[in-house]
Parts: sequence; structure tokens; C-alpha cells
Amino acid sequence: MKKLINAPEDVVPDTLRGLAAAHPDLRVDIKNGFVARADAIRLGKVGLVSGGGSGHEPLHAGFVGYGMLDAACPGDVFTSPVPDQIVAATRAADGGHGVLHIVKNYTGDVLNFRMAAELADDEDIAVSSVVVDDDVAVEDSTHTAGRRGTGATVFVEKIAGALAEEGAGLESCAAAATDVNERSASFGVALRAGTVPTAGRPGFELADDEIELGVGIHGEPGRRRGAMGTAKEIVATAMEAIHDAKPLDGRLLVMVNGMGGTPLSELYIVYAEVADWCARHGVTISRNLIGNYVTSLDMTGCSITVCRLTEDLMRLWDAPVRTPALRWGR
Amino acid sequence: MKKLINAPEDVVPDTLRGLAAAHPDLRVDIKNGFVARADAIRLGKVGLVSGGGSGHEPLHAGFVGYGMLDAACPGDVFTSPVPDQIVAATRAADGGHGVLHIVKNYTGDVLNFRMAAELADDEDIAVSSVVVDDDVAVEDSTHTAGRRGTGATVFVEKIAGALAEEGAGLESCAAAATDVNERSASFGVALRAGTVPTAGRPGFELADDEIELGVGIHGEPGRRRGAMGTAKEIVATAMEAIHDAKPLDGRLLVMVNGMGGTPLSELYIVYAEVADWCARHGVTISRNLIGNYVTSLDMTGCSITVCRLTEDLMRLWDAPVRTPALRWGR
Repeated sequence: MKKLINAPEDVVPDTLRGLAAAHPDLRVDIKNGFVARADAIRLGKVGLVSGGGSGHEPLHAGFVGYGMLDAACPGDVFTSPVPDQIVAATRAADGGHGVLHIVKNYTGDVLNFRMAAELADDEDIAVSSVVVDDDVAVEDSTHTAGRRGTGATVFVEKIAGALAEEGAGLESCAAAATDVNERSASFGVALRAGTVPTAGRPGFELADDEIELGVGIHGEPGRRRGAMGTAKEIVATAMEAIHDAKPLDGRLLVMVNGMGGTPLSELYIVYAEVADWCARHGVTISRNLIGNYVTSLDMTGCSITVCRLTEDLMRLWDAPVRTPALRWGR
Repeated sequence: MKKLINAPEDVVPDTLRGLAAAHPDLRVDIKNGFVARADAIRLGKVGLVSGGGSGHEPLHAGFVGYGMLDAACPGDVFTSPVPDQIVAATRAADGGHGVLHIVKNYTGDVLNFRMAAELADDEDIAVSSVVVDDDVAVEDSTHTAGRRGTGATVFVEKIAGALAEEGAGLESCAAAATDVNERSASFGVALRAGTVPTAGRPGFELADDEIELGVGIHGEPGRRRGAMGTAKEIVATAMEAIHDAKPLDGRLLVMVNGMGGTPLSELYIVYAEVADWCARHGVTISRNLIGNYVTSLDMTGCSITVCRLTEDLMRLWDAPVRTPALRWGR
């Protein structure tokens, strides 16, 4: 294993150290395990908190900032954050109008966020939780009961974040987050597994001509292993799986997301095929996002996430955002 | 070789097809081999054109847009664009106040941009050229006489682009570009080579415990092969090489750039060490950029580029930019 790290056990704190050095508008509390906006608690605004295992950067800490998350708590690599971290992040995000927890559907995350919500309730912080479960590849995987939460998390965080910034209340933000999740679907493909630093070798093995169709962001098995195909063939498999689960119509927001080790040129090639597929199926892509947003360490491969937009969701997607990983409009 | 592509020979046109589908504010002319701003020629503004071999995405086409390049011409993978492409891009960027060519110092690029400048001159388009040669690792490599041009290209394109947007004349833009190049220095490290699609196998081989120190963005040999070290050790080697060539002082702009296959978390770990190194050496990082900007296909590794800022250069760096790969302030 060759990685640009100091020691396998220091990967998370060293990443946070870099984040703190690079972004003075973030408050990085390594001791208590969270990252928050440095402009502190905004009274009267609903706070947004997310988190989960590390290894998916820029998710989640890279989405902390104006118009998106107020705080994020990174666990160890592929390990849920503990309730104490989540409570600390919740306190840091609470401006007196409640806090929305955005939770990817993995058993550990769901349990620990639930426990944290109860602890926050003891401190009279109102918490509402939304569980993201957009990955249509499989039901009940190695890490989850039900569908896994992946790329739609970015959409949920962005859109609920914009709504909170506009002054919406906790239940409105939660309803929008739920709506975005229900309107979204994802499908991922791995060409090569990522390597957990403390494990030192790839999480699974694929033959030279083999890919994992429907892979999870921790390397969980997908629907099946298949032969390496063209970008066009891989996109057809992914888009058909998405369309079968949640029929596509109207105007779409599409993310082509790299798994960490995939060059941008390949993501654009995939996007070209997604655009072709949509044109052939009579659906319009109104907004897009192409790059590394929900990664799996150095896995090569990509995921495609689609959300059926409404007028209102498009407006919230377009609203200004200023975070390390997503920035426009200011 | 497993890549998300359709066919090795289609990688460049398919990438451009994706770029066109994703970014309606770009005019992607696949036939003539250039990408330009769709808002067309802006009369009275100096035009900025860059280009070079493909395989370094988002460089250069990802930097076309408001506040940066007016046009870019991508060659085949690791192959210079031909003069006809460069002339077409130059025409597309010419608003009657001349065009600045920003050329990375590789023999083919320099020759072809020079020939294109002569052809443009025949059409009464005034062209000024700046050659970027910031890579301090080696003199006279396999692709270059003198130093190679790498990460500073991003700084030159951004800062000269901001100046052109302010209405500066051709010679002012060229002078600023030259100044930024002279104030900048880069050093790259490879952990694993990238694979040219038509070659189908990595460009060079490194042992499991070996890295290439001072590697070029086409996989050119660096100063030496060394043992895999910690991020702290690798950063020390890179920063000392940079500091030896161009002593660091004052306030710096620092880019930690991924080579294409390196996860963002590792780039942040590297940035943490760069920040530590600078703090120990009494220099201040005033601005930073962390991510994949000048890649080498799916190479793993990173490069560090440093520019000694002036007050004016910092203002131009901060000015609004709106391109696929760099966007802030609007």
C-alpha cells in the first residue's frame, strides 16, 4: 500500500488538520470530532448536521459552509461517528430553531444519530432526522437494512441547506430533505476496490476484465460482477436500474461522481453517455455536477445519481453556496 | 487496463462531448479542436488561449470561462495540439485587442504555438506568448529543453485572465503572466504511473515501496527514485527543492494538486504538512487550492506549486471566476 499519509491511524486527524489549515472559515474541533462553520451559531436559523464514516471525502466536512451544512462529524474510516460527536456537532449547529440530522442509511449511522437525537432532546434541542437511502442497487446489504444512502446525500444537504438559509422552519427543511431523497436514485460501479489504510490491501478483488455493478461506497457487493464494458454499456446498466426503481421524467439533476481514483476525463465520458441516454429516453437534464463528491477512498469507478427536480427544488439547488467542495453564487 | 471509456482512440472526443453536454456556456468545437466561451468574442478584451496534450484534465478546457481563458485547444493524450487548432482557438478569442498564448514548456507545444502565432499574425491578430516553466525538479527532461511547465499554469491563467477581464492591454497581461511564472515553482511526486489509453499499460513501473521524486506530468523521470516515505517526508523533499530554486518569503499562494488517482483526503494530509513546513520556515500561506487541477491521467501522487504573491496578484487571484473547474465570486 502506497498512500500520501503519515500513519494509517492518523489519516482522519491529519485530514482534519489539513482542512483546518486550508479553510479558516471552518471551525475544526479535532478533540470533539466535528467540523462546523466558524461564523458560529446563527440564531433563528435551522441547523443542519450530517456525518458518517471517513473515506468519502469531500463528504461530509467539505460541505460545511454557507448554504449547506452547519456541522459535520467524521467517524474513523468507514466507521460511524459516535453519539458524543454527533451531540457536539448538534450543539454547534443549534441556533434555537432546531437541528436537522441528515443520515445515510447504514445501521451504525442510524443507531448513533438516533441516540444523539435523544441526548440532544435532553438538552432541549429539537432534532428532526432524515435518512437518505437512494442507492437502488440492492436492498439489505452488508452494512444496511433497506437501501444504502449515497450520492443523494449531496442533493439533500444542498437543497435543505438553501431552504434553512432562507429561514424555513425545521419541519419544512425535513420535508424538503425527505422529498429530495424520495425523488433521487443512485447506482455505482467499481473497477478497482479502495484500500482502507489500516487494512493495507484492497477491500475486495476484481479480475482484470471484471467490474462490480451496483457497488456500495464501502465496497459492499452490488447486484453482480460483470465483464468490463464500454462507458456506454455501463451507463445503460446504471440508468436502467435507476429508471426501473424510480421512473425518470421531467427535468433532472444528474451527478456523475468519481469514487476517488477515477480521472475527471472518464467522468466526462460517462456524463456524455448519460446525456445521450436521457436524450434517447425523452428526459431533460437541467442541472449537473461532475467530479469527486462521495468517494470510497481510492476506489476507481463512478456512481450516477439522478433527482427529478421541481421548479422549487431547482431554485434551491441554484441558490448560493460556499463550502470547500461546492461553491457558486458568492 | 480498465477505464470508463468507449474506445482508447475516442477518449478525447468523448471527453469533449461530455464537456459540451455539461456546460452550455462553453462552445465545444470538436471538428476544429477547441473549446471557447459561448458568449463569444468580447470586443475590446484581450483574449487568452492555452492548450496542450490531453490527459491533464481539468487543464485546460476546464478553465475556459469568465475571468480565465477565452479558449483552449486540447491535443490528443500527451500530444501537442496542432497549429491549425491553435489558430482556430486564437480567432475564437480575438476581440481586436490581441491574444495571449499561455504555453507550457514542452518542445512540441512551444513549436506549435509559435507556428500558430505566425499564422495569426498573417491574419492581423496580435499575439503575445508566455512560456510557463515552473517545475524545479529537473532541467532538460525527455519532453523539454529547460524546465517543464506544470501547476503554475493554473495561476498564470487565473491571474492574467482576471487582468484581461479588467480591461488591461496585451502587454500588461503578458507581463503579469511572466511575473506569475517567475514567482512560481512546482515539484511533483508519483506513487504509481498513469496509463495512456492507447498504450494500455502504465507509463513506467515503480516497486511497491518506491516513488518517483520530481516526476513530470507525462510520467517523465524526476530527480531520483526514493523509498516511500511519510507525507511529512515527501513534503519536506518537495518544499526544499522549491525553496532551493526560488527562495520562499512573504505571502504565498499554494496549490496541492492531485495527479488524477489520488483521493482528496490524501491531498489534505499533504496540505497539512505544507502548512506546517511553511510555519516552521516563517512564511505565510495566504491563499490555497487543493484538488485535481493538473493531472496525469490516473497517476497517483501529487504536486505542490507555490507562488510568492504581491498585493496586486492576490487581488487578481481573488477576482471572480466562473469556469467548470474553478468558480468563485459569481
